[in-house]
Amino acid sequence: MLRIHAVGGYNEVGKNMTCIEVDDEAIILDMGLYMDRFVAVQEKNIEMDYETLLGEDAIPNDAVIENLKKKIKAIIVTHAHLDHIGAIRWMGKKYRCPVVATPYTAEVIKRHAKGIENLISINVNSSYKISKNIEVEFINVTHSVPQSAILNIRTKYGSIVYALDYKNDNHPTLGRKTNIKKLKKLDDVLLLIADSTNADEERKTFSEYIAKEMLHDIIMGMELGDHGLFITTFSSHIARLKSILHISKLLGRKPVFIGRSLHDYIAAAENLKLVNFSKEVEIIKNAGRAEKRLRTMNKNKNDYVFIVTGSMGEKNAVLTKIVNEDLALKISPFDFIIFSCEVIPTPVIQANRKILEQKLHRKKARIFKDIHVSGHASREDLRDLIKILQPHHILPAHGDLSKTASLAALAGEMGYELGKNVHILQNGQSIKLA
Amino acid sequence: MLRIHAVGGYNEVGKNMTCIEVDDEAIILDMGLYMDRFVAVQEKNIEMDYETLLGEDAIPNDAVIENLKKKIKAIIVTHAHLDHIGAIRWMGKKYRCPVVATPYTAEVIKRHAKGIENLISINVNSSYKISKNIEVEFINVTHSVPQSAILNIRTKYGSIVYALDYKNDNHPTLGRKTNIKKLKKLDDVLLLIADSTNADEERKTFSEYIAKEMLHDIIMGMELGDHGLFITTFSSHIARLKSILHISKLLGRKPVFIGRSLHDYIAAAENLKLVNFSKEVEIIKNAGRAEKRLRTMNKNKNDYVFIVTGSMGEKNAVLTKIVNEDLALKISPFDFIIFSCEVIPTPVIQANRKILEQKLHRKKARIFKDIHVSGHASREDLRDLIKILQPHHILPAHGDLSKTASLAALAGEMGYELGKNVHILQNGQSIKLA
Amino acid sequence: MLRIHAVGGYNEVGKNMTCIEVDDEAIILDMGLYMDRFVAVQEKNIEMDYETLLGEDAIPNDAVIENLKKKIKAIIVTHAHLDHIGAIRWMGKKYRCPVVATPYTAEVIKRHAKGIENLISINVNSSYKISKNIEVEFINVTHSVPQSAILNIRTKYGSIVYALDYKNDNHPTLGRKTNIKKLKKLDDVLLLIADSTNADEERKTFSEYIAKEMLHDIIMGMELGDHGLFITTFSSHIARLKSILHISKLLGRKPVFIGRSLHDYIAAAENLKLVNFSKEVEIIKNAGRAEKRLRTMNKNKNDYVFIVTGSMGEKNAVLTKIVNEDLALKISPFDFIIFSCEVIPTPVIQANRKILEQKLHRKKARIFKDIHVSGHASREDLRDLIKILQPHHILPAHGDLSKTASLAALAGEMGYELGKNVHILQNGQSIKLA
Amino acid sequence: MLRIHAVGGYNEVGKNMTCIEVDDEAIILDMGLYMDRFVAVQEKNIEMDYETLLGEDAIPNDAVIENLKKKIKAIIVTHAHLDHIGAIRWMGKKYRCPVVATPYTAEVIKRHAKGIENLISINVNSSYKISKNIEVEFINVTHSVPQSAILNIRTKYGSIVYALDYKNDNHPTLGRKTNIKKLKKLDDVLLLIADSTNADEERKTFSEYIAKEMLHDIIMGMELGDHGLFITTFSSHIARLKSILHISKLLGRKPVFIGRSLHDYIAAAENLKLVNFSKEVEIIKNAGRAEKRLRTMNKNKNDYVFIVTGSMGEKNAVLTKIVNEDLALKISPFDFIIFSCEVIPTPVIQANRKILEQKLHRKKARIFKDIHVSGHASREDLRDLIKILQPHHILPAHGDLSKTASLAALAGEMGYELGKNVHILQNGQSIKLA
Repeated sequence: MLRIHAVGGYNEVGKNMTCIEVDDEAIILDMGLYMDRFVAVQEKNIEMDYETLLGEDAIPNDAVIENLKKKIKAIIVTHAHLDHIGAIRWMGKKYRCPVVATPYTAEVIKRHAKGIENLISINVNSSYKISKNIEVEFINVTHSVPQSAILNIRTKYGSIVYALDYKNDNHPTLGRKTNIKKLKKLDDVLLLIADSTNADEERKTFSEYIAKEMLHDIIMGMELGDHGLFITTFSSHIARLKSILHISKLLGRKPVFIGRSLHDYIAAAENLKLVNFSKEVEIIKNAGRAEKRLRTMNKNKNDYVFIVTGSMGEKNAVLTKIVNEDLALKISPFDFIIFSCEVIPTPVIQANRKILEQKLHRKKARIFKDIHVSGHASREDLRDLIKILQPHHILPAHGDLSKTASLAALAGEMGYELGKNVHILQNGQSIKLA
Repeated sequence: MLRIHAVGGYNEVGKNMTCIEVDDEAIILDMGLYMDRFVAVQEKNIEMDYETLLGEDAIPNDAVIENLKKKIKAIIVTHAHLDHIGAIRWMGKKYRCPVVATPYTAEVIKRHAKGIENLISINVNSSYKISKNIEVEFINVTHSVPQSAILNIRTKYGSIVYALDYKNDNHPTLGRKTNIKKLKKLDDVLLLIADSTNADEERKTFSEYIAKEMLHDIIMGMELGDHGLFITTFSSHIARLKSILHISKLLGRKPVFIGRSLHDYIAAAENLKLVNFSKEVEIIKNAGRAEKRLRTMNKNKNDYVFIVTGSMGEKNAVLTKIVNEDLALKISPFDFIIFSCEVIPTPVIQANRKILEQKLHRKKARIFKDIHVSGHASREDLRDLIKILQPHHILPAHGDLSKTASLAALAGEMGYELGKNVHILQNGQSIKLA
Repeated sequence: MLRIHAVGGYNEVGKNMTCIEVDDEAIILDMGLYMDRFVAVQEKNIEMDYETLLGEDAIPNDAVIENLKKKIKAIIVTHAHLDHIGAIRWMGKKYRCPVVATPYTAEVIKRHAKGIENLISINVNSSYKISKNIEVEFINVTHSVPQSAILNIRTKYGSIVYALDYKNDNHPTLGRKTNIKKLKKLDDVLLLIADSTNADEERKTFSEYIAKEMLHDIIMGMELGDHGLFITTFSSHIARLKSILHISKLLGRKPVFIGRSLHDYIAAAENLKLVNFSKEVEIIKNAGRAEKRLRTMNKNKNDYVFIVTGSMGEKNAVLTKIVNEDLALKISPFDFIIFSCEVIPTPVIQANRKILEQKLHRKKARIFKDIHVSGHASREDLRDLIKILQPHHILPAHGDLSKTASLAALAGEMGYELGKNVHILQNGQSIKLA
Repeated sequence: MLRIHAVGGYNEVGKNMTCIEVDDEAIILDMGLYMDRFVAVQEKNIEMDYETLLGEDAIPNDAVIENLKKKIKAIIVTHAHLDHIGAIRWMGKKYRCPVVATPYTAEVIKRHAKGIENLISINVNSSYKISKNIEVEFINVTHSVPQSAILNIRTKYGSIVYALDYKNDNHPTLGRKTNIKKLKKLDDVLLLIADSTNADEERKTFSEYIAKEMLHDIIMGMELGDHGLFITTFSSHIARLKSILHISKLLGRKPVFIGRSLHDYIAAAENLKLVNFSKEVEIIKNAGRAEKRLRTMNKNKNDYVFIVTGSMGEKNAVLTKIVNEDLALKISPFDFIIFSCEVIPTPVIQANRKILEQKLHRKKARIFKDIHVSGHASREDLRDLIKILQPHHILPAHGDLSKTASLAALAGEMGYELGKNVHILQNGQSIKLA
């Protein structure tokens, strides 16, 4: 008997969590936050406990697997983004089982879900035997955070491939390419659980090196003069940070990283020797406590590139604090602000970002938006994946009905049939495949 | 006395035409078509004469300068796009004066406005003396067609800089960079007439080499197999065609250009030795008459990259004919169609393009959209231009009120004032500056 | 054995056609045009034959029921809109069976599909026995055309309720209310095929009398003076025409209907004594041949309300001809144009309408848009219908995946499950229910 | 000398404030909050003082009139909405002069700006002599709050008509019609300052009685059963509340108003005997302190219509508290929630509202959105106003450039010219008219 339980991430982009039940055992794949709702809770400045987060829809509601708790053998996670690992901190202990992740992901979990025990680190392109009957392989993929993986779960009923948050980047700027060779070797794929986020984007997602070239084109091509230059991106995007650092040096300015989450993600990457930023550049973890240092820098802004947290307008991030004049580092008219990111299209985040931009405009900053490429596979990448794997069944995930329906439509074009071998689930629903 | 007459292009993106009146002389800048309305007329399969085109709003209504006709000393045009030169064919003869353009633009006018006499070709970064009192300089700029120019019109009242359709590309893939050095030398700029098209895009427009890298990333990174590969772009975009040709060869397939307008723009470029495509690749001017050749190619589609006309879904273009099965060259399921262009956001063109895409989907083609960068300056490029020129007055052009207002807002941020030294005109309005 | 075949209208809003197969018999429900594609073909001024229309996607592709042809016992249609009956003219003869419709619908079919034989007219709230095993009941519903029906198809496997294009209007201005009492009596409903068009509109659709009040408020409340007053709406919308006529008289102006399709739909309604407009008002069928009459009216525009065809900017309709100055009736600056309709959101129709509006603006007309309420049930009406019928299965129709998915989501909220008892089909797919 | 200073509301819909300087005197028109920014500050639960609100852009920045302070003779306000009067609480005392308003507006100011002295109440259609040289007339208009006025400011240089937030409603459900007769008598109008909010809506704004009919149609036409019925609207919209009350009684349920701002606006209206709701219905000011009463009602929800605060998803409003289960009154599956309002299109308010809707959906509530008509004049109403007043100059207000430009375009169609007699100002700019 093989059952798939859609716990979270099937009604929204966020709080991803899926359960695979195989006879008398089960495993959980990902355990993430719904960032928009999580940010909304954070802004209330209240104690964040399990009940509050559940009530606010910020973590998955796992009622559908309540009676399976004792069968759960492992929580397997794919990569270090909070919409995939962020709920472990509050929900992990409910399940008395190890959390299994690639080394970078494990490092980040260690920092986020303090006190988590039984954290197992497995290299990409390696396997882990969960039990006699279930083995999981971490297949290396490119995404916007190091050491992301597609999971291949081998059972006696066939393989289940869990492919969220990946793209097929042929020119990654950090780490290795998506392991297409391995994917091509898989046979007898019973089910593909796939990323619907960009399933309606009619293209192939661009390589990360395109983002690097965009940044280079912008930064080296402007009438910058002696104005301040601020760049913000997703703090976990180590590859992007590496590009920014590289270009800053070309420009002849010293890069400075400012903000707690930048510090933390970089520290995790350095622990694993993926990068060595701190050898070359200054990293200021706590901007509030570095007043003197920031005041000095503020007087010589043309010597620096400031890489700061706050790309989504988060209320406690560095860019927001600068704009609100809460720090010694200031924005002057005609300073440059580069957003090397997209805006996550959810209401609270959009509102925060909009307010940030309004304030930047009031300060007459020069704004550069969307200097970015996505980390998610587009429609034609997904078609390639389906073509390569030839799965018996497809389960679109990572989005609401409008997104999962787009992936279902693509599958339909390739000969699959909704209801027969393409399945659309909502949070809290289950399906039996064997 | 110096007066500016807004003839066309101040209520829409299209049919650009401005008149500068200097004492007892006057000149016309650009004389273009409103492409959306022109396409609508074309589809009626009726005789296209001056009256019809005027009645359908496809060419500028020059009533505002009716009484100046005898004073007009020259028609000066900036570049070879039809929204800047296309109306010469029907309106040019009304004015008994030379048409002055850069060599590539002149070549294209020769083909489009057959029988046009008195066509004067001036190299970029050169000047032309129109009369004792008016001289015009063609300053080289980057755009999506060769030999585009910003015009600097020198009068005794100061200089008028006419800067439509340019971008500041530091890495052009064909031709030279925008002549910033020259622009920096200009002083006493009385008026800047500037491109509002992308004035609300908060960024710097990306270099053309970014588009080249995008195409490279897509084309070299797909699971192409032996499927057909079709690429379409704006036919006048010689730089883009060069990139496509280059990548096609990397792929090991023979590029073939198919379609009349591709043939014509390439022929113009070859006449001037800007490129030499026909030495290396096959160019099929009339697809309807090349049935045998296309049939052979259709049997070996995996040997070719087909670069075809019809990126906007035009009814008589090659891609439309292929989709309608009017040619021997066919689209099979899972063939690749790359749109290396954006969709011009006007109603008839959007409808044509949408219909084309629907038909491609029915044929199960794989579609790649927007593999493109714009040729128009964005908000931050425009800010640089204003900063460099320090004009006394600014007149936003090339768009309706929503676009011209965006440029006015930018100017406002830089200390200009609407009504005082920023002027918003509608088609048919005039303003006196001295 | 009971099978449902989705022939058309499951990938688009248009060309509705569904086939119900019951053991060794089958029936077809609706046979409509895809209006956007049909308009596109019309504009080409070419001969419209079956092959062309099929190739252009303007009529349903019935390949999926090719081998059932001999089993088809009847074509049952719900109402007189062309997206439900328009394809009979080209496809009806393929099937050697009667067409069954309510009297008004039959009248319209007679005019549209000339030469159609075997047209059976059945009153609303009556039944028709198709064979020993299949009976169909025409349950009266409110919609934007007279005598619309929900079909109840009774078979030994249970009832199939086919509910496209209806709303639950408690205050209709013509005809009777939706027969809720009857719907409440139905039991053992195996399947509900339901209208998804407005399934994502979170409300109840407003009554037609709201549209009447809107028109009253606008027309009686303006500074009209002696300006011309033109009103356009969907020509088949007899109830709306009746309201316009009523308000015109309150205003003290004579209503005049101008245009062929207005004439035809009114004639059909008068034949059945549903209205008697021609007794009171002038109806000009062919505007091109009424030059003298129109010239007279044009001199005294303030005596009239002109109700004209062309609400979607169709190229041969009266409003388009007026704007193009092809008729003796003209638009002067500050004349009033009331669009008592919405714009059908498909590309060709949107482009036509946009062009019409641009031309009206150039003539300085005063435009009043969207003075209208929809004829389609919204989300909360659909919820009521499901609640009343308690069907075992639900099949969303009348829209692409984004719309059908919205209805599926509503069903999910009410306890149904996608894949189990909610089914999403694409054109050309089938499902077996018994 | 006559100068107009644009203080607030010329870059946004909000914080309206204009100053008219006439020789050695000046007056202020309106003094409002920018609601979106104000709500954002409120949610921080911090002390709201002048400095904070100014820094957050929630109140107007009056730097442009800093040196005129001593000349200010009066603050004249048009109506009781917070974007017109809300800043008086923090800024009123800066100016040592009376605040002049209609009686209802004065009542509301008394409650909002506690401690305000020198509040003068003037009936609609009456005048107030500010000084020897300036007189202001309050001309009655319809809007979505009682006793709104267009101001006619008479000076020796001519009249200035200040017409924000009005519509021309011929069938108001509370109060009198817009005093068109008076407006038609005005001559020598030097300047019209007009409402741009809906200037791009091509229609006449519907009468309030259309909203009443919509509510009637919805509420009386649903399959309500014994489910709970909640209605929310703008608390100051007394006319709408009256309609809801009326329909509730038709339905046979008892209306209950719950929430502080509902209580306050109703109390103000009752003080002036405009309505007498509290005689007939229960009003619960503080829901948190009415636990027992709400618990009783919750057991018999089918006896009541609950009219609650929180239509914009405000965090402390009653509807939000209900959804968060902070009150004894609950929402059960399939309860009805009617939003008799639009969503104010600014980021924080949109985010709040979206979150509210998400939570309602999770509770399986039935949602009815946009059961509403606007209170602002549309394009064709504005055209009528300009036609009636024939002002020498027009100054669009109440919106950013995209909105003010729409009104300027309308004026252009009527023969006015931007820069000459149509003026577009930004916050902080001034213009001299005599």
